[in-house]
Amino acid sequence: MKFSKTYTLKEISQIINSEFVGDSNFPILGMNEIHVVEEGDIVFVDHPKYYDKALNSAASVVLINKNVACPEGKALLISDDPFRDFSKLAKYFNPFQKADKAISETAVIGEGTIIQPNVFLGNNVIIGKNCLIHPNVVIYDGCTIGNNVTIHAGTILGSDAFYYKNRETGFDKLISCGSIIIEDNVDIGASCTIDRGVTGNTHIKEGTKIDNQVQIAHDTVIGKKCLIASHVGIAGCTVLEDEVTLWGQVGVISGITIGKKAIVYAQSGVGGDLEGGKSYFGSPCDEARKKYRELAGIRLLPELISKVNNI
Amino acid sequence: MKFSKTYTLKEISQIINSEFVGDSNFPILGMNEIHVVEEGDIVFVDHPKYYDKALNSAASVVLINKNVACPEGKALLISDDPFRDFSKLAKYFNPFQKADKAISETAVIGEGTIIQPNVFLGNNVIIGKNCLIHPNVVIYDGCTIGNNVTIHAGTILGSDAFYYKNRETGFDKLISCGSIIIEDNVDIGASCTIDRGVTGNTHIKEGTKIDNQVQIAHDTVIGKKCLIASHVGIAGCTVLEDEVTLWGQVGVISGITIGKKAIVYAQSGVGGDLEGGKSYFGSPCDEARKKYRELAGIRLLPELISKVNNI
Amino acid sequence: MKFSKTYTLKEISQIINSEFVGDSNFPILGMNEIHVVEEGDIVFVDHPKYYDKALNSAASVVLINKNVACPEGKALLISDDPFRDFSKLAKYFNPFQKADKAISETAVIGEGTIIQPNVFLGNNVIIGKNCLIHPNVVIYDGCTIGNNVTIHAGTILGSDAFYYKNRETGFDKLISCGSIIIEDNVDIGASCTIDRGVTGNTHIKEGTKIDNQVQIAHDTVIGKKCLIASHVGIAGCTVLEDEVTLWGQVGVISGITIGKKAIVYAQSGVGGDLEGGKSYFGSPCDEARKKYRELAGIRLLPELISKVNNI
Repeated sequence: MKFSKTYTLKEISQIINSEFVGDSNFPILGMNEIHVVEEGDIVFVDHPKYYDKALNSAASVVLINKNVACPEGKALLISDDPFRDFSKLAKYFNPFQKADKAISETAVIGEGTIIQPNVFLGNNVIIGKNCLIHPNVVIYDGCTIGNNVTIHAGTILGSDAFYYKNRETGFDKLISCGSIIIEDNVDIGASCTIDRGVTGNTHIKEGTKIDNQVQIAHDTVIGKKCLIASHVGIAGCTVLEDEVTLWGQVGVISGITIGKKAIVYAQSGVGGDLEGGKSYFGSPCDEARKKYRELAGIRLLPELISKVNNI
Repeated sequence: MKFSKTYTLKEISQIINSEFVGDSNFPILGMNEIHVVEEGDIVFVDHPKYYDKALNSAASVVLINKNVACPEGKALLISDDPFRDFSKLAKYFNPFQKADKAISETAVIGEGTIIQPNVFLGNNVIIGKNCLIHPNVVIYDGCTIGNNVTIHAGTILGSDAFYYKNRETGFDKLISCGSIIIEDNVDIGASCTIDRGVTGNTHIKEGTKIDNQVQIAHDTVIGKKCLIASHVGIAGCTVLEDEVTLWGQVGVISGITIGKKAIVYAQSGVGGDLEGGKSYFGSPCDEARKKYRELAGIRLLPELISKVNNI
Repeated sequence: MKFSKTYTLKEISQIINSEFVGDSNFPILGMNEIHVVEEGDIVFVDHPKYYDKALNSAASVVLINKNVACPEGKALLISDDPFRDFSKLAKYFNPFQKADKAISETAVIGEGTIIQPNVFLGNNVIIGKNCLIHPNVVIYDGCTIGNNVTIHAGTILGSDAFYYKNRETGFDKLISCGSIIIEDNVDIGASCTIDRGVTGNTHIKEGTKIDNQVQIAHDTVIGKKCLIASHVGIAGCTVLEDEVTLWGQVGVISGITIGKKAIVYAQSGVGGDLEGGKSYFGSPCDEARKKYRELAGIRLLPELISKVNNI
């Protein structure tokens, strides 16, 4: 997330009531998680294992729980609880705004777009031209929809990331301040749920078609012309390259990449990166032809056991 | 789908700007996909592999991409792109009508039926007597619901079929002009999605009970007194005969038949026709008792491998 | 369910038009299913196999289809169809009330709680302080929500139990008269469905976090600080002890207990009680490390078969 204006290191430190290392006028442009951080951004880190990664990232400011040496040209925010303070900043820069009405006056609706009854459009939602938004769709604040997009009834875009830190006292939620981008010519079925990014965007690219009851978690990127069948669940921060096909009830773990034109058959579970251009099956999945040989083997298993016992 | 009146071959050819073979006054009553086509209907075919099937079907008019010999008593519409033109006809005869209000004035609601708040009822929806439609249910244009039907909150009836042709330039959607028929005494749980037929009907027969978050795709027929548990997904053009039971999270592929009184256990994947009166398990599923033997075999597998390695 | 006042045995017998055994003034306080029945309650039983269990339960009144010996200090209601008559009582004491408006005047909303547009709150719903109820959420009559609870858009709380008796003439529904209790600091994602209890409560305890599209059936109890990922389905009358984690697309059968701090990996199927503090995988699931050995075995299976065939 980028801030609406440039803040100084001192201003940020005052918001979260922290010490800082660096020039008090050091300019800060935004805040982001490590995997999407850019120059000018704050990143946070609270585990020594990841200190180096954060300090060497594109981030200009590191919100950290130890007074380490500050890298050249960067600044530090020293906090006893970087997770809490990063979440505090997310809330500060992206405060929840109660809706006055079902369709916010700040929502922008393109020419030729039809909004059916009982739809909710939050603040600063942008919808392109010639879209069809069916009844009871909910689009939270700040989501951006392209042109010629169809969204079927009951679909929810922009709910919070399912992202918690486990503390003794209970789960502590990382406030989501990211958003959703849906490109042109995307179709989304009925009763889907797509979460916003934590600091970046959940992104559905041009021409992708999504069936009913699909779940797509925060910060996941779905390439162009993908085909995603019903009841598929895709966890956060995962990348589907272009023209990937996921059949019904497939589950995909977080943080992986599925290569271009990969096909994953129904009910499979994707637990790691998949090379493009191949077909996969099983939970956990493997290349389909390999999996089929294993399945053939399993069917022979009772017989095989008798055979071995008779040797 | 039947047209509201009889059209002539010439009139249809003008809508799609195509050549035709046959009498210009040849009467046309409707349009349907090959698996539900009837006398008087147009069917479309664009692959030589299926030409014979289409030409020999019950269809009276074949929308085809080659000037083949016209069967006796039939007519042809010659198009360079039958898929595009069939879709064009679907749109022409079933144009999307923006809703003026959440409950259309053309919706018919039977005596004793309760419609809770925030429900959407599209144009020409028909709901029978003594039904209970819970809040935030969405029923798209033209769906027909019988008597004594309960539909729980957030359920969506009549969203479009997930049916696309893969073209270089992107996926091309086949416009759905079919509908949904729900018979008497059906219960549908919360947040289910049932798609309309492409040209025919998705059909849920008398007395069937459906749990929450079930997905039923286009043109699927669910028999009488079936029991369908939560998170089941059934793909398009599939038939469940009467008294079939599908337990939770079962997935069913498109175009198959599950026989009367079959029982499919939880999380199973049905990839082909199933004989009635039996129990099934696994993904892909097989007869349960066979599958249980295999599972017992798998549990013995680590031991079996040691055994074989020691021979 | 407890009645709003004490009824007499005679009064109850008149509602269902049954015979009774016991003092006509015998006091009755409520009605419950066998697994949650308390002193003063009616329980029902219609199968000789369970007569003893019902007669020896905490119930003070047994609605039964045989004139058995009445236990000391108890009473009987004799019915030819206890299921029908129990359901009749549920309906009598908990009649469906059509909503006049989307947010009932009898709903109680705590200080600082935000209700977004298009939400439905039924009669006698109670929501605590500082909650955030996102758009298009539906909360049926009588549900109770604690403080600091977030419920994302499209979620449905309080739909009926999926509970039917199979009769020749069709499925006969057991009317739900139970409710839902959500404790403090619970988060529920978008498009979840949580059914009410049949006579008791579906209960989500303090600090539990639930992702999108999760289904939780009637009378299930989710402990404190559980983490439940997307597309999980949990059947009725199941207990999750505290700090249980269920990853995406897990399915859990009815009537079992998952022990404290158990972790169930994605797409697993839980078919029986699980001991706490361990990790599980597979459908049906087993301890993860055991399952991983089996999966390693399966990958070796084609080779093993060749090996055995060559012996």
